Amino acid sequence: MIKHSRKPSKSRYGLPPGALIHVGERKIEEVEISFIDYDGQTINEERIEHIQETARFRETHTVSWININGLHEIGVLENIGKIFDIHSLVLEDILNTQQRPKIESYEGYLHMVLKMLDYNVDSMEIVSEQVSVILKNNLLLSFQERPGDVLDPIRERLKKGLGKLRKSGADYLAYAIVDAIVDRYFYILEMLGERIEVLEEALLADPSKDSVKEIYTLKRQLITLRHAVWPLREAVNSLRKGESELVQEGTLIFFGDLHDHIIQVIDTVENYREMVAGLLDLYLSSVSNRMNEVMKVLTVIATFFIPLTFIAGIYGMNFEFMPELGWKWSYPVLWVIMIIIAGFMASWFRKKKWL
Amino acid sequence: MIKHSRKPSKSRYGLPPGALIHVGERKIEEVEISFIDYDGQTINEERIEHIQETARFRETHTVSWININGLHEIGVLENIGKIFDIHSLVLEDILNTQQRPKIESYEGYLHMVLKMLDYNVDSMEIVSEQVSVILKNNLLLSFQERPGDVLDPIRERLKKGLGKLRKSGADYLAYAIVDAIVDRYFYILEMLGERIEVLEEALLADPSKDSVKEIYTLKRQLITLRHAVWPLREAVNSLRKGESELVQEGTLIFFGDLHDHIIQVIDTVENYREMVAGLLDLYLSSVSNRMNEVMKVLTVIATFFIPLTFIAGIYGMNFEFMPELGWKWSYPVLWVIMIIIAGFMASWFRKKKWL
Amino acid sequence: MIKHSRKPSKSRYGLPPGALIHVGERKIEEVEISFIDYDGQTINEERIEHIQETARFRETHTVSWININGLHEIGVLENIGKIFDIHSLVLEDILNTQQRPKIESYEGYLHMVLKMLDYNVDSMEIVSEQVSVILKNNLLLSFQERPGDVLDPIRERLKKGLGKLRKSGADYLAYAIVDAIVDRYFYILEMLGERIEVLEEALLADPSKDSVKEIYTLKRQLITLRHAVWPLREAVNSLRKGESELVQEGTLIFFGDLHDHIIQVIDTVENYREMVAGLLDLYLSSVSNRMNEVMKVLTVIATFFIPLTFIAGIYGMNFEFMPELGWKWSYPVLWVIMIIIAGFMASWFRKKKWL
Amino acid sequence: MIKHSRKPSKSRYGLPPGALIHVGERKIEEVEISFIDYDGQTINEERIEHIQETARFRETHTVSWININGLHEIGVLENIGKIFDIHSLVLEDILNTQQRPKIESYEGYLHMVLKMLDYNVDSMEIVSEQVSVILKNNLLLSFQERPGDVLDPIRERLKKGLGKLRKSGADYLAYAIVDAIVDRYFYILEMLGERIEVLEEALLADPSKDSVKEIYTLKRQLITLRHAVWPLREAVNSLRKGESELVQEGTLIFFGDLHDHIIQVIDTVENYREMVAGLLDLYLSSVSNRMNEVMKVLTVIATFFIPLTFIAGIYGMNFEFMPELGWKWSYPVLWVIMIIIAGFMASWFRKKKWL
Amino acid sequence: MIKHSRKPSKSRYGLPPGALIHVGERKIEEVEISFIDYDGQTINEERIEHIQETARFRETHTVSWININGLHEIGVLENIGKIFDIHSLVLEDILNTQQRPKIESYEGYLHMVLKMLDYNVDSMEIVSEQVSVILKNNLLLSFQERPGDVLDPIRERLKKGLGKLRKSGADYLAYAIVDAIVDRYFYILEMLGERIEVLEEALLADPSKDSVKEIYTLKRQLITLRHAVWPLREAVNSLRKGESELVQEGTLIFFGDLHDHIIQVIDTVENYREMVAGLLDLYLSSVSNRMNEVMKVLTVIATFFIPLTFIAGIYGMNFEFMPELGWKWSYPVLWVIMIIIAGFMASWFRKKKWL
Repeated sequence: MIKHSRKPSKSRYGLPPGALIHVGERKIEEVEISFIDYDGQTINEERIEHIQETARFRETHTVSWININGLHEIGVLENIGKIFDIHSLVLEDILNTQQRPKIESYEGYLHMVLKMLDYNVDSMEIVSEQVSVILKNNLLLSFQERPGDVLDPIRERLKKGLGKLRKSGADYLAYAIVDAIVDRYFYILEMLGERIEVLEEALLADPSKDSVKEIYTLKRQLITLRHAVWPLREAVNSLRKGESELVQEGTLIFFGDLHDHIIQVIDTVENYREMVAGLLDLYLSSVSNRMNEVMKVLTVIATFFIPLTFIAGIYGMNFEFMPELGWKWSYPVLWVIMIIIAGFMASWFRKKKWL
Repeated sequence: MIKHSRKPSKSRYGLPPGALIHVGERKIEEVEISFIDYDGQTINEERIEHIQETARFRETHTVSWININGLHEIGVLENIGKIFDIHSLVLEDILNTQQRPKIESYEGYLHMVLKMLDYNVDSMEIVSEQVSVILKNNLLLSFQERPGDVLDPIRERLKKGLGKLRKSGADYLAYAIVDAIVDRYFYILEMLGERIEVLEEALLADPSKDSVKEIYTLKRQLITLRHAVWPLREAVNSLRKGESELVQEGTLIFFGDLHDHIIQVIDTVENYREMVAGLLDLYLSSVSNRMNEVMKVLTVIATFFIPLTFIAGIYGMNFEFMPELGWKWSYPVLWVIMIIIAGFMASWFRKKKWL
Repeated sequence: MIKHSRKPSKSRYGLPPGALIHVGERKIEEVEISFIDYDGQTINEERIEHIQETARFRETHTVSWININGLHEIGVLENIGKIFDIHSLVLEDILNTQQRPKIESYEGYLHMVLKMLDYNVDSMEIVSEQVSVILKNNLLLSFQERPGDVLDPIRERLKKGLGKLRKSGADYLAYAIVDAIVDRYFYILEMLGERIEVLEEALLADPSKDSVKEIYTLKRQLITLRHAVWPLREAVNSLRKGESELVQEGTLIFFGDLHDHIIQVIDTVENYREMVAGLLDLYLSSVSNRMNEVMKVLTVIATFFIPLTFIAGIYGMNFEFMPELGWKWSYPVLWVIMIIIAGFMASWFRKKKWL
Repeated sequence: MIKHSRKPSKSRYGLPPGALIHVGERKIEEVEISFIDYDGQTINEERIEHIQETARFRETHTVSWININGLHEIGVLENIGKIFDIHSLVLEDILNTQQRPKIESYEGYLHMVLKMLDYNVDSMEIVSEQVSVILKNNLLLSFQERPGDVLDPIRERLKKGLGKLRKSGADYLAYAIVDAIVDRYFYILEMLGERIEVLEEALLADPSKDSVKEIYTLKRQLITLRHAVWPLREAVNSLRKGESELVQEGTLIFFGDLHDHIIQVIDTVENYREMVAGLLDLYLSSVSNRMNEVMKVLTVIATFFIPLTFIAGIYGMNFEFMPELGWKWSYPVLWVIMIIIAGFMASWFRKKKWL
Repeated sequence: MIKHSRKPSKSRYGLPPGALIHVGERKIEEVEISFIDYDGQTINEERIEHIQETARFRETHTVSWININGLHEIGVLENIGKIFDIHSLVLEDILNTQQRPKIESYEGYLHMVLKMLDYNVDSMEIVSEQVSVILKNNLLLSFQERPGDVLDPIRERLKKGLGKLRKSGADYLAYAIVDAIVDRYFYILEMLGERIEVLEEALLADPSKDSVKEIYTLKRQLITLRHAVWPLREAVNSLRKGESELVQEGTLIFFGDLHDHIIQVIDTVENYREMVAGLLDLYLSSVSNRMNEVMKVLTVIATFFIPLTFIAGIYGMNFEFMPELGWKWSYPVLWVIMIIIAGFMASWFRKKKWL
């Protein structure tokens, strides 16, 4: 069950647009602000106490990545809005964690809304978290609802100076973040794919009542995944075509690659959706088959014994004048007749392939 | 049941186009005309008796918002048409409360038709009301079928001078009205989402006959919602692209935000529609399962006792020469045979997982 | 059953294109040619005997409306083609009453093919008739298969000089005709909507065998309606954009309004189609529920009595040595045992909610 | 069963593109080459023995129509390719009779691939044959798999000089051929429409097991028809827009008319496909209803007699001490009790509408 | 089961983009590098040990085709990347064998990803292998996962100098490879088509439980085929329009032909998908019919004998005062009554067509 995507909190209705209200779950922990500043040569990571400290990164020539964990303190966001000159509607979008994924160009910055999905292997649920990214010239702001995420490998690569990341600008960092989130979708797809395969084998062997529930759950999880990835297609496509001057030409090819990945996720999701629909057909026809088998057993037994029982009933009658009752061979002859009837029925059932 | 969207009243057929006839339900109350005139500094609210009084707002430099509650007095509308120079087809559209939502440009004004939906928590019905908005340069006319609506918070914000509203022009007021109506859709979606969740749990636990009715009702309400919001997408999209000179550039970003909201509503509606379709599958397979279970019980019982009853019938026959009847151990031996048959059947049923 | 849209008459095959053959039903009555000539000041209506008389209207400055009722006399049409210089393919289209609705521009005239539908309240059938309209500069030719139609109100308005009609050109008259035909679609939709509502209530209360037939008929009638209105959308859209010089600028807004109406008809048709599809689901699940109920009754009764009957059968056996038969309390004790078994079963059924 | 469209013969795989191999069935008859040469004044028809003779028609000012019946002699086609300068890929397409319909422009000629369908009234099967047309300036080459076809009326019209055909160029002849083929689709649609109608009535009256087979066959035949006509839409649309200089301006209007016919075929096919889908629903619900009825009969009979049989069983027991057995009125009283129980059940069944 | 398309290996997650990791199955065999160098006159084929040797083909004027079998040695690919100046993202795509088919333009080369499918006749499974092609000016690199493939006929044609192949450039070679792969799809379609036909006949005759499994498998194989071919459509379409300067004008027509083939594959796949969906309907209605038949037998037998058994039960009662028991003709009269009842029922069943 992914509550987030389904329940826009009631408290937002009737407010003026641009009013900052956080609609996610309220957490007790403090807002964490971490900061990484790097260029090809140096890297500098620290934790920030007061949001005002971030102001000094505004004008550096190094790439600055400010990550905010937790959105429940409105004041923090308001300050960030003032320091980095961000439109109040964008701030509202960051706080409203039921946004649809999107990438929007504003004057001087790019705003990305992404769904960071994760898969809980034990409960087999998909956990959704909204990640917002503001990309300015040498600066990247990222906003998460909760600490702990798929972005840690990026931090590692930054620190170790692996790959292109340290040598590239903030646009490449933005790409790396989206790529990490999309890569996670592949992992979730793999998990769902395994479940589909398991379910498929279970259905062909022995369909149980829980199968429908599982099919239904898979269907919904695929809907969730689709809603997370579908809107990214157009958004990333416009980036790869160089429509934003914030993305340098050398990075375009990477957004092209990202676009490929997104299309592959969409393709696989659609593929799985068709398979899951097929599973339901499989299940329903399996249930039909079972019913058929049950009915056959009932019919065979009843059809076998009802006529015989009738015959026995006839000779259980107490009429005074029933000549057969007194004959000596009546009883064995009756047995022979019954066995003949039974044999005839058995062969008829065999012809009908009911036995 | 949303009668409005389904029954264009018969009385309209065969009339010349542009003929003014109100096709909604006729109400006994008077038409209410309220008026708010404001700029950044002052605000002035009053109730108007005669429609001619509104003429004086035509040329003011302050923003004037004239709200008409009730459409049943044709004369009022005819006068407004004359005073503010509005095309008779537009007036016809305002009166015909079964319009499709749309936003249309005319020379010097913009005409919006919106569906203001509300959700009756007790009857779980969606109530639909048509709101028409005429946006002129410094003037906004809004037409409603009934008093009492989702626009009250806007009036509050105007009076209190909160947010951008008081400092902005009539175009921003128009945006605020559409935004308030679309916000209401989120609330209805939330209500429907809760019902889907409740229904889903009920279906997995114990499907009842009413579930189909509820699924069907949900389906129809989602159709209603979709028909209210779907046409807005293109309409608002053309506004946000600045295709009307009545919308100032500073307001465009807000229409962009509104467009996002509308797409989110559409997305969620489609999402819910798929879920509701899934619910029907869930219900049908659940009914199948039940039938299966009923059949199994019948089959098990019948298959168990029919052969035993046949045996009992045999020895209830009254033949004079049935040697078994006279044997001393016949009766207990028969019991043993019956118990063996029963045991054999029980194990067979267990193998088939019917027990 | 709408025969027209389904059976292109065999007699047409293998003919050269442009060969004039009337494929509708042949009627015995005469072809009726009526004629109305008007401008803002005067109006003149007469019936014409010989088609050649119409030639004199070719060059008048007043608007001339020539209406031809009945298409079975090919000569009439051939003459009209010569007098008003109409392409033989257009004449062929007029005669072939299984045309798809369309609006086509030719040099100097506009050719419209429309489906005039009507609803027979008694038989609940949709009656279809093809109306072709040729719009030239000051002239409008309309062709109908049968007399008596939805155009009478237009004639009334012309005679009484109501509305814009008398003061406008032939293009407005063309608009008025299409509008009258589309208005009729609303009426049919209303009738179908009522039947859907009635059927819906019937289905929720008590589904009968005829319901499927009714659902199927509704489905087909909606297909008919959709095929009549769907092609008009694009056709009228191109007119409203002013792509034909025969439509004056002042009339464009009316075609815009007409376009709105057409989209509304399409919307409602799609809406109804979904509802009807929902009705089928409702019916099928209702049938399933009934079957379930029937099965439950059978199962409860059989499960109740079969074991009891078996017990009775046991003590109906005629063994000489059945000690229970001689005991004094056997009979009442057996009743007690049977009642206990019955009670146990009843409680089990109640737990399963079968009682 | 339309084998052609489903089985690309294995023998083609792994060949170089452009290699000429005929993949249709091999016929024993000779390839027939017939030739018609005409202009407004004269017409000349002959049969040609050697393909080289056709070379002389290359440069005439009259229109030449060369028709080749039978594709199994590769040499004939190779020669034609050389004489008329046709690309080897086009020749390959002509031989490969599993082509998709298309119209392609090459330098100096137009290549059309069409499916000539026919309907066998006895076997109720659709027979498919590929017709390829090469249109050059004053020359038209047509290739058929078998002699005898829908083109005979065109030859008749040519000989008799009826209509525009004799007076027009090769482009009009090409149009006439496509038109004749498309006209045949209408005939097939009519046949299918009649079968749908018959099936529909049969289903409403009394669904049999063969109905599904018939529904399935109709579905497949509509798929065949759709695959034959669907690709023509775009192809003919580009011709009517004058994209090929081989089609003269005067002929464009005829291709426009043809385009209309094609859209009408597509419309009708989609219409029928929906109806056939509806027929399946009708059938399935009809089967459900029957099952329901069968179950009701079983339930009524069983529920009626099982309790009564139990009572009879009770008094068939042989206990020595059963006081009722000795009472004088027991037997008639029991009858009364049984009749009361039966009456109660009957009224209950009537309430449930099972009787 | 096509594992490849469903399981992106876990080991890729969290890596920097462009990191080279082979995600297919690891094979023990060595990587095979074969090389063919040809022009119109000469052809030269050899096997290469060290990847560095390929560097010398970079600048030749003959066409060089380097084929790499096996992707598990990353070093080989890294070297190729350096020698031929290929972007690391492209190399990553080559190694990642779960790519979606695509054709991408890079500066100086074209990158194609294709799915080479094969059909295992014994297991009736589709085997998928990814083939990547790099097309440079006079050079073509092809990468396969396994040796042995559908490209052998191309090598033969090269050696024998058949057709256009030897005389054309590397672009025609690229076309020939794609064409060979697409040709294979036709073969698979033929195999699937045969299975559909066999299944169809089996279903009409006697549906078994395995039919659903077979239908489901066919469905999935068609999904696989569709995912292999669908993305090629747009890719090849852009090539045929001459969007890449690497494809010479003379080759464009062949890509056009290829495009036709691809569309035909897609068409046939869609066609088959509809047929398979129809098969499921056929199966389900067939199961319904069977159930119906089983139920009828049960109902007929039970309805026949239950009332008769009841009558026998009545006269098996042991009441002392049952006058009928003593009458002389009771027994034969009862038989007559029973036969009358049975006859009445038989005629009723016949009327209902249950017998």
